Amino acid sequence: MEKYVLGVDFGTLSVRAVLLRARDGAQLATASRSYGAYDTELPGGVPLRPLGCGAVPEEYRSMFAQAVRETVRLADVPKEDIAGIAVDSTSCTLVTLDAEGVPLCERERFRREPDAYIKVWKSHSAEAEARRLMRCAQEMGEPFLNACGHKVSSEWFYPKMLETLWNAPQVYEAVQSFLDCADWINFLLTGKIVRSINAMGIKGFLRAGRYPSEAFLRAVDPAFAGANAKVSGPLARWGERVGSLTEQAAAWLGLPAGIAVGCGSIDGHVAVAALGMRQDGDLLLSLGTSNVEALLSATYSEMPGICAMARDAAIPGFTLYDAGQAACGDMLAWYMENMLPQAAALQAQERGISPHTLLSERGLRTPPDPQGLVALDWFNGNRCPHARADLRGRIDGLSLRTRPEQVYRALVEAMGFGARQILETMEQNGCAIRRVIACGGTAVKNPDIVQCYADLLGREILVAPLENAAANGCGVLAAAAAGLYPTLSDAIDAMCTGTSARYTPTQAFHPAYDCLYARYQRLGEQALADAAAD
Amino acid sequence: MEKYVLGVDFGTLSVRAVLLRARDGAQLATASRSYGAYDTELPGGVPLRPLGCGAVPEEYRSMFAQAVRETVRLADVPKEDIAGIAVDSTSCTLVTLDAEGVPLCERERFRREPDAYIKVWKSHSAEAEARRLMRCAQEMGEPFLNACGHKVSSEWFYPKMLETLWNAPQVYEAVQSFLDCADWINFLLTGKIVRSINAMGIKGFLRAGRYPSEAFLRAVDPAFAGANAKVSGPLARWGERVGSLTEQAAAWLGLPAGIAVGCGSIDGHVAVAALGMRQDGDLLLSLGTSNVEALLSATYSEMPGICAMARDAAIPGFTLYDAGQAACGDMLAWYMENMLPQAAALQAQERGISPHTLLSERGLRTPPDPQGLVALDWFNGNRCPHARADLRGRIDGLSLRTRPEQVYRALVEAMGFGARQILETMEQNGCAIRRVIACGGTAVKNPDIVQCYADLLGREILVAPLENAAANGCGVLAAAAAGLYPTLSDAIDAMCTGTSARYTPTQAFHPAYDCLYARYQRLGEQALADAAAD
Repeated sequence: MEKYVLGVDFGTLSVRAVLLRARDGAQLATASRSYGAYDTELPGGVPLRPLGCGAVPEEYRSMFAQAVRETVRLADVPKEDIAGIAVDSTSCTLVTLDAEGVPLCERERFRREPDAYIKVWKSHSAEAEARRLMRCAQEMGEPFLNACGHKVSSEWFYPKMLETLWNAPQVYEAVQSFLDCADWINFLLTGKIVRSINAMGIKGFLRAGRYPSEAFLRAVDPAFAGANAKVSGPLARWGERVGSLTEQAAAWLGLPAGIAVGCGSIDGHVAVAALGMRQDGDLLLSLGTSNVEALLSATYSEMPGICAMARDAAIPGFTLYDAGQAACGDMLAWYMENMLPQAAALQAQERGISPHTLLSERGLRTPPDPQGLVALDWFNGNRCPHARADLRGRIDGLSLRTRPEQVYRALVEAMGFGARQILETMEQNGCAIRRVIACGGTAVKNPDIVQCYADLLGREILVAPLENAAANGCGVLAAAAAGLYPTLSDAIDAMCTGTSARYTPTQAFHPAYDCLYARYQRLGEQALADAAAD
Repeated sequence: MEKYVLGVDFGTLSVRAVLLRARDGAQLATASRSYGAYDTELPGGVPLRPLGCGAVPEEYRSMFAQAVRETVRLADVPKEDIAGIAVDSTSCTLVTLDAEGVPLCERERFRREPDAYIKVWKSHSAEAEARRLMRCAQEMGEPFLNACGHKVSSEWFYPKMLETLWNAPQVYEAVQSFLDCADWINFLLTGKIVRSINAMGIKGFLRAGRYPSEAFLRAVDPAFAGANAKVSGPLARWGERVGSLTEQAAAWLGLPAGIAVGCGSIDGHVAVAALGMRQDGDLLLSLGTSNVEALLSATYSEMPGICAMARDAAIPGFTLYDAGQAACGDMLAWYMENMLPQAAALQAQERGISPHTLLSERGLRTPPDPQGLVALDWFNGNRCPHARADLRGRIDGLSLRTRPEQVYRALVEAMGFGARQILETMEQNGCAIRRVIACGGTAVKNPDIVQCYADLLGREILVAPLENAAANGCGVLAAAAAGLYPTLSDAIDAMCTGTSARYTPTQAFHPAYDCLYARYQRLGEQALADAAAD
């Protein structure tokens, strides 16, 4: 008898559900709903601190239920054949629950406290807290720091917790559990708190099964000493069943009670499960607004310049290395809004194509020019290897003969060189990369850009045609959790829908790209030196 | 009785004549005609070498005559009251004459030789020749090298001559005289060869009345040993009479025979005479397609980083320092064609203003941001202080929040910082700058840009409203040559039509501009280091 699973992806601005056939991973239906990510004030006029970004639990809950119900309605399959559900979310997107499991912002006395709301992953208001944690960890030689590239980002779990302590101690006091968003959704589904190793290993300082020491937390701030108690709860791996859907949750979502609820995940990683990746050296290259480079490796190596590394944080038995680039697709979108000349805009319009296609045709189909333009892709700071939000982009090589498509190409190449730097860091630290699989909007929509990546990385790239790779990955986790397959790897093998295109690097371009890459690296060194001098 | 004078300016693509009232310099009429500057092949299919730029003597002659005749017709004054004429031209724009005074390209046997045509100032096909001359001069310690910033440009007189020797020895052999364009026009007017100290001092290695030594020329190439014989002829200063208009020339131009013909000049300098500049520390800031910074100083100092310096090369008794920036107005024009986004183009169109005005309003009327964008204005190489055509522009500080008007402002500021570097070089080498007078299209049309220059230079700037400042300057030289005034300075004082606007630096902006200028200088050092590494 046919079985089905639900996968649900909580993004920054919307939640998407998919219903998959468990036998082969075919997507039968999908629906999504939008919610807010607020960056100056929350609904009701609650002001956020500068660089903060907040969200409202009720919006997440109600849009989640609508997306799930709509998906199930569209799929039109017998509900009793839905065997499981699993979710991912952006991370660290921090939710605070009190002793009754209620988000603190829903308690009257905390309604005006921004720290009582969801802190969205991209909130950067905890910079001082991140610096404090990093300095103390350096001084005390805390081992967790080795597992996050020796840097602490204000986007992560502990800086956001410390921010609550420092800015709203009464909220901090009232918190029973700080939870990453996907784990909170799982609490709503199962009534139990079970944390994802994926989220806590990558964003939560969890290293070899341990959180930072109490001595360290006390050194950060005596009032922070008991923080680990607010992060307690069992841990789970991908493919594990964290619980069963409660009667209450079943009624809320219109699903059968008792079905499997799978371990949660970070949105940027779970595509791995949908793309058939489960081997040593498999690298996920997710080309979206920002880029993710996530590597599965049999080798564990605490390497600087990579955001984080954690054993068993994705496919059990492997280490997951998490890296990324802070600006990619949004850099090209910025170009289109701020630098695309009218003539090119009109030509694209006349031909009924997007300006991306026009400039890709003109700019990306010729051999690279080692004397040409070089850009630095730090338009939103640099995530890897420098983990600095204050760094900025550059363009070098401009002349009176420079054409728009050359600037566009330089931006595309800069994104690719940023990826190359990350991949080389991984390999130089002992982790071989054997296969690169790309997904995301840019990978599916713009073959010229993927070819350029293949050429400048000097690596073959496979592209998966999945539009909702993260939600699909959750479906695979749900199938494994429901016991429809003996292991997660079996579920991955059966449900992977394959790759649609293979891009082979153009050997003849290597010397020119090596020159350009050297120039890219010099540009980065100069930008760093300037940031130090300012 | 009222007297009149003619001034004629030979630009890159056109010749302009003006007729001035000698009493007060009022412009009574003007006309211009276009000719070609050919950069791949000359008319008739004569191919040029790469980077070459050529022109046709007959086009210059016939357009000159038309422009003069039209101007005189429009002025409608008694012809017999026209007392003199003087011309300027781009430089070094090299003309080759045979023993009969005929341009060699007009001899049947040289019709297919590109070296027998006019070599336009911006021809860069003599790079190897320039390097050869520079290396030999360095090795032999030739003093002329000290008077041209220790660099030799392929745009200058001797490199272009050597190019002829090396590429067309039979042409070189047949040349009796190599002449800068204005001196050639004066030969057509007077039948005599008299050379302008302005041109030969600035572009022709003339230092303290001497050309490079024969030993040096022989070291460059034994066949080049006699080159100075092809540069012979008396020298003249601004305001001197080099001869009288011949009967033949008078008939050709429709002017009275026997009138004064004044010393020729370089187009970029002669505005000095129209703008009332004749004192120690007067600096001409000509804001056009490219920029000229020309200083009159009582001090003679052989400073590196300035194109050339020569005594008596402009106002007798002063040293003229010649400097410039290879891209300015054309950099902003490049921006408009290649980076102005459609939205801004449409907004400018709706308001009926130029996009320059729109972006100036939005970008230039706020305080400078020391953390903001910084650009390097080397879009056409760098003329001063590096004299390198291979250098390129940069933009630093780009982020996803960068707006078009910020990019535009960065380009304007880069032009200004390039000027600041030149002015500081002059002052650091002992030449005080006491007054800055700006002219040129940008100075007259865009007050926001001039204000920005004043702010970032920290200097008051006066702007002269003259549209044809060079041709007007020639008119002043013609009046002096005709003896209508006792001295050139008297002619300048009487005929200067004054400045129209005074821009005062905003003191409050100095600290921010000092930061940005330091960043601009670092960007330049990095670009130089990269060029050395490539």
